[in-house]
Amino acid sequence: MNDSIIEESYGVAETQTIRLSLPPEGFSLKKGGVLEEINVAYERYGALNEAQDNVVFICHALTGDAHAAGSSPESEEPDGWWEAMIGPGRGIDTNSHQVICANILGGCKGTTGPSSINPQTGETYGSSFPKITVSDIVEVHRLFLRELGITRLKAVVGGSFGGMQVLEWLIRHSHEVESAIVVASAASLTTQALAFDIVGRHAITSDPNWNTGDYYNSDMPLVGLSGARKLAHITYLSQQLLSSKFGRSKRAEWIEAGPDFHVKRESNFGTYFQIESYLEYQGRKFIQRFDANSYLHITLAMDEYDIEEFYGSLEKAFESICSRLLIVSLDGDWLFTREQSTEIVRALVKLDKRVSYCHLEGAAGHDAFLTHTADLKRIINAFLSQSRPGEKRKCIRKIVPEEKMVRYREILKMIPEKCRVLDLGCGQGSLLNLLRHHHQVQGTGVEIDIDSVIAAVAKGCDVILEDIDDGLAIIPDHSFDVTVLSETLQTIKRPRKLLQQILRVANQAVVTFPNFGALGVRTSLLFHGRMPKDEQLPYEWYDTPNIHLFTLKDFTDLCRKENFKVESLVCKSDNILEKILLALGFKNLGASSVIVHISKKGSGDSAACRRDAGV
Amino acid sequence: MNDSIIEESYGVAETQTIRLSLPPEGFSLKKGGVLEEINVAYERYGALNEAQDNVVFICHALTGDAHAAGSSPESEEPDGWWEAMIGPGRGIDTNSHQVICANILGGCKGTTGPSSINPQTGETYGSSFPKITVSDIVEVHRLFLRELGITRLKAVVGGSFGGMQVLEWLIRHSHEVESAIVVASAASLTTQALAFDIVGRHAITSDPNWNTGDYYNSDMPLVGLSGARKLAHITYLSQQLLSSKFGRSKRAEWIEAGPDFHVKRESNFGTYFQIESYLEYQGRKFIQRFDANSYLHITLAMDEYDIEEFYGSLEKAFESICSRLLIVSLDGDWLFTREQSTEIVRALVKLDKRVSYCHLEGAAGHDAFLTHTADLKRIINAFLSQSRPGEKRKCIRKIVPEEKMVRYREILKMIPEKCRVLDLGCGQGSLLNLLRHHHQVQGTGVEIDIDSVIAAVAKGCDVILEDIDDGLAIIPDHSFDVTVLSETLQTIKRPRKLLQQILRVANQAVVTFPNFGALGVRTSLLFHGRMPKDEQLPYEWYDTPNIHLFTLKDFTDLCRKENFKVESLVCKSDNILEKILLALGFKNLGASSVIVHISKKGSGDSAACRRDAGV
Repeated sequence: MNDSIIEESYGVAETQTIRLSLPPEGFSLKKGGVLEEINVAYERYGALNEAQDNVVFICHALTGDAHAAGSSPESEEPDGWWEAMIGPGRGIDTNSHQVICANILGGCKGTTGPSSINPQTGETYGSSFPKITVSDIVEVHRLFLRELGITRLKAVVGGSFGGMQVLEWLIRHSHEVESAIVVASAASLTTQALAFDIVGRHAITSDPNWNTGDYYNSDMPLVGLSGARKLAHITYLSQQLLSSKFGRSKRAEWIEAGPDFHVKRESNFGTYFQIESYLEYQGRKFIQRFDANSYLHITLAMDEYDIEEFYGSLEKAFESICSRLLIVSLDGDWLFTREQSTEIVRALVKLDKRVSYCHLEGAAGHDAFLTHTADLKRIINAFLSQSRPGEKRKCIRKIVPEEKMVRYREILKMIPEKCRVLDLGCGQGSLLNLLRHHHQVQGTGVEIDIDSVIAAVAKGCDVILEDIDDGLAIIPDHSFDVTVLSETLQTIKRPRKLLQQILRVANQAVVTFPNFGALGVRTSLLFHGRMPKDEQLPYEWYDTPNIHLFTLKDFTDLCRKENFKVESLVCKSDNILEKILLALGFKNLGASSVIVHISKKGSGDSAACRRDAGV
Repeated sequence: MNDSIIEESYGVAETQTIRLSLPPEGFSLKKGGVLEEINVAYERYGALNEAQDNVVFICHALTGDAHAAGSSPESEEPDGWWEAMIGPGRGIDTNSHQVICANILGGCKGTTGPSSINPQTGETYGSSFPKITVSDIVEVHRLFLRELGITRLKAVVGGSFGGMQVLEWLIRHSHEVESAIVVASAASLTTQALAFDIVGRHAITSDPNWNTGDYYNSDMPLVGLSGARKLAHITYLSQQLLSSKFGRSKRAEWIEAGPDFHVKRESNFGTYFQIESYLEYQGRKFIQRFDANSYLHITLAMDEYDIEEFYGSLEKAFESICSRLLIVSLDGDWLFTREQSTEIVRALVKLDKRVSYCHLEGAAGHDAFLTHTADLKRIINAFLSQSRPGEKRKCIRKIVPEEKMVRYREILKMIPEKCRVLDLGCGQGSLLNLLRHHHQVQGTGVEIDIDSVIAAVAKGCDVILEDIDDGLAIIPDHSFDVTVLSETLQTIKRPRKLLQQILRVANQAVVTFPNFGALGVRTSLLFHGRMPKDEQLPYEWYDTPNIHLFTLKDFTDLCRKENFKVESLVCKSDNILEKILLALGFKNLGASSVIVHISKKGSGDSAACRRDAGV
C-alpha cells in the first residue's frame, strides 16, 4: 500500500436482496435436498469497470453476513465486519475494485436458510430445512453472481470458513477466478476444532426449547445458542491475547453491585472475573443477531468439509487450479493452524501452481484476520495490486548493488531458460525478477522477512515466508529444477542437511558463499590472533550470522561425500594477491567468494527442465 | 529407577472412611461457612516405617478420588487413577514409602461434599453446602493425617489441581513436609482455562434439572454435567494427541447402524466422527461417577485459587518454604502451561529454595501425567529416592575423565566456599557434586538433556531443565554468586548476550573455552585450507556445535567492551610448542584451552558470598 494514500471508509452501504432465477425443478443440494426458491442478500462497494473484470468477491466466515464494509447506520453494528480491510485505499481497494459480499446459503441474514419461509408450506423451514455443504454455498453464490451478469472474478477472498469457500471456488471454477486469497483457513478442521463444534451443537440441541429445530413460534433455544457461542468465542482468540486482555481481573460490579446481585451471582456459581462478563456479553450479543438452526447447519457443513475425503487428496483437488493464490496463516491461531495452511501450500507447490504464503506475527489468534489487520492489509494489497487492471504499477526500482549484480549474472548463466527455480532467501525478489525478465522463469522465493515478502509479492513474485533453518519441509521433493542458495549456507544451523534438502527439492543447485580459506582470511587469523573481520566477513565473532565458516575445499569435500557433482565453479577475488593466486590455479587461496553449480549425480541431463514456464 | 526392579501393581486396595474429630464449633471454612461433621475417604499403600517418616501424600486432581493405586475389584474402574505411578518398584515406590491418598473436601467419593447428608437437617446439603477453597481442602487433609497420627510427610505429590494443593501445603505447612512434587500445575489458572470452566459451569447451572443445586430427590442435571465434562475433556489432551488418536475418522456405526439410528443422529445434527462418540462416551461415563454440585464447587475453588492475589506475590507466598521441590510441566499441555511452571520455579530460585524443574516431551497434553508416565516416573523416582530413609543409595560413581578433572580443579579454586553456584550445562552433576563435597555448596545446575537431569537429580543435585540458548529467563537477577559456564560459550547462538546474562544472574563467573587462536589451530587453517579439526575441535564444519569460534584475545576484548574484570586466568596447552609459547607469555598462541574468572566491575568483593549454604 502506498503510504501517501489516505484510507477511508466506503461510506453508507445497503444490503440488497435478489431472488435467483432457478429452473422449475429448483436447486438440488449435494446431500439430496432441493430448494425451490433461493434469495441472496448482498452488498457492493466500488464501481464495476468497463471490462467487468475488477470484481473481488468476499466469502464471509461462519456467522458473518453481506455487510462486509461501509456503514449501515440503522443497524446495531453499523460498521461492516471487514471494515478495516475494504474501502478506498484499503487492503482491498474499492477505488480499483468492485467488492461484492453475499450472505451464505443456510444463513439468517437475508439469504435463504432454516428461518426462511418454505414456499411449499408458507411456514418457516425449521426442522425441514435440508442439510447443506460448502459446495452448495459456493454454487449458490456463483448463480447469484451470474444473476448480476458477472462471469469472471478478479479475486475471491475469504478468512476462516470463508477460506474454505475460496478453496471450493478454486476446485470447482478456477478458470473463472484470476486470483484467490485464503486467510486463516484449512482444507478440513482439526480434530480439536471438530470437538469444540460438537460440544457447541450439543449445547443447542440439548436446549429443551430447540425442539428439533421447530421453535420459531415459541421460545427460542437461546441458552443453548449462547453457550455454543461462548465456547466458540474462546477458540477465536489466542491464549496470549485472552491473558493480556482480561488476565484474572475482576469486574467493577464486584464492588459496585448490591448484595442481591452478589447472592444471585454466587448461588449460581458465577464469578466476578472480567472474562465471565465478556463471555456473557458475547453470548447475549450473538443470540440477538443469529439463529440457532443456521448455526447448526453452517457449523455442520464446515465440520464435514474435507477436501481430502471429497476429492481423494489435496493434489487431486487442486489439479485444475489456474488462479494465482495467496495463503495466509496467523500467529496464535490454534483453531486453523499454521500447519493446515502449509499443507495447502505444499500441495500447490507440488503441482507447480502459483502460490505465495505468509504467516503473520502478532499472537492474537484466529480472529486477528478481523481485529489485527495491519500486516494482512499490506500483503493482500500487494497481492491484488500485482496486476490491477487498467493501471500501470508505479514501481520504484531498487538499484541492485554492482557486487550483487556480478554474482547474479554468474548465477543466471548457470540456470537454463524456462526452468522451475526456487530462490532461497530471495529478499525483495531482485533475482527472481531478473529470472523472469531474462529467462522467462516464474520462480518461487523463500524468505523469512515479512517486509521483503510483501515487497517481492508486490513485484509479482511468488514467495513463501519460511525460515530456511527449519528445513524445507514446505517444499515437496523434485518440485523445482534448480535451487539457488546465495550467501546463506554459512548462516545455517545444519548446513549439511540444507545442502541435502536443496538437492531433494531440485536436481540442481547454484550455491554462492564466502570462502574462509582465502589467503586474506587465513593470514588475518595467523597474524592478528583474532577472528577475521573484513568486507566479506564484516561481523564480530559474537554477533556474526556466519556460524558455520568453511573453505572452498571444505565445500567440495562435502559434495564428494554427498555424491554431488560440481557442474561448474566461478571464483571471485577481493585483492590483487588473491587474483594472482587464482590465476595460478590456487582456488582455495585465491577465491574470496565462490559461485558453484552442483547437481545430484545420476539425475540425468543437468540442463533439462520440466516446466515450460511463461510469465 | 533401577532397571532390575520389577514393577508391580500394589494389589487389592480398599477405600476407608474416617470421621474427623472436630471441635464442637465445627470446622470453619475460609469463605465463612462451617461444617459440623467431616468424613474423609482414603486409601493407604505400603508400610509405615518405625520412624513414621516415610509417608507420601497424594493430592488428587479435579475429579479424582482416594483410589489412586492398586485394584478395587468391585469397582467399575478397578485400577487406581495413578496406578502407573504408584506401586512396588514404581515411580512412587510402595516398597519404601507408605502412600496415602484421600478424597478432597467438596468431593463426592466418600469425603464430605454437597451430596453428603447435612447433620443439621438430615437431608443432602445441595444448595446449602458452603463454598470451599483450596486451603480448606488442604486443612481438612492435614487434620485427617493427624487423625492417623501422621505429623510429618516425606513428600506431598500432586498433578493439575492436585499440584495447587501441594503448593498450598507448602505455603502453609512446609516445615511438616520434607519434599514436594508439583506436576502440570500452576499458581493460578490462565484466562483461557478460566473461560472454559465458566462455560462448563454455565452448562450445568442452565440445565433446568439443576434447580440451584437441590436435585437429589428428582432428575439430575446430567445433560449439563455431561456437557461440562465433554468440554473439559477436550482441554485435557493436546491438539496433536487428539489428531493422532482420532483424526477425522468416522465410527463403525456409520456403516453398521440401521436407518433409524441415522435419522435420529442426523436430525439431531450428530456426526459420525469418532471424536463425537469419544466425547459422548466421556460424558456418559462421567455422569455415572460424579456429582454436578461437586463439580461446581471444586472448579470454582480451582478458578478462584490465585497465590499472587491471596499472598501478594509468589515470593511472599513461598518465603517460608523449607521443603525440596520438583516442578514438572508437560509438552502439549495448554491448560497448565510451561510458562506457569517456570514462573513458580523463577520465584523459588529467587528465594534461594531447593528446586528442580523438568519439562517433559511427548506432546500428549495435560492428561499425560496420567497417561504418558514413562519419563515422569523416572524423574519422580529419582527425586524421591535422593534421601530414602533407612537406605543407603547404591550409587554407581561415574569416573570423571582426568582432562575434565584438571579443569574442574581449576574451577573449584576460583569459587569461594559456601557460595551460591549456578552451573550452566551441568550434565549429570559431577561438578555440582564436587562443589558439594569440597565447598559445602548446594549449587543449582541448568541442563538441556532430560537423562542427564534425571541422573543429576538422583545424585541429590537441584537441576533446571532449560536450553541455555533461549537465554536464562528462568533465573532472576543476582540469584547466585558465581555462574560456571564450561566449554559451552562457543556453541551458543548469541554468546555476547549469554555473557551478559551470566553476569546478570551472578556477580562472578568462571568461563572455560577452547582458544581458536592457539598456534595449532591457526597453522592448520593456513596450511591445510580446511576448517581446523583436532582433539579440541573434533567436529566437521557442517555439524560442529561450535558455531561461534573465538580466540582468547577476542574474549578478553569483549570483556573490556562489556566492562567485565578478568579476576584470574589459567591457560592449558596441548603440545610442547604451545607450552613453550605459554611459558614465553604468548597466551593467545599457546593456550589451547582457557579457564577464566571474570566479574562485573564495581560489584564489590569478588570473594563475598551471600549464602551460608550447608548441604
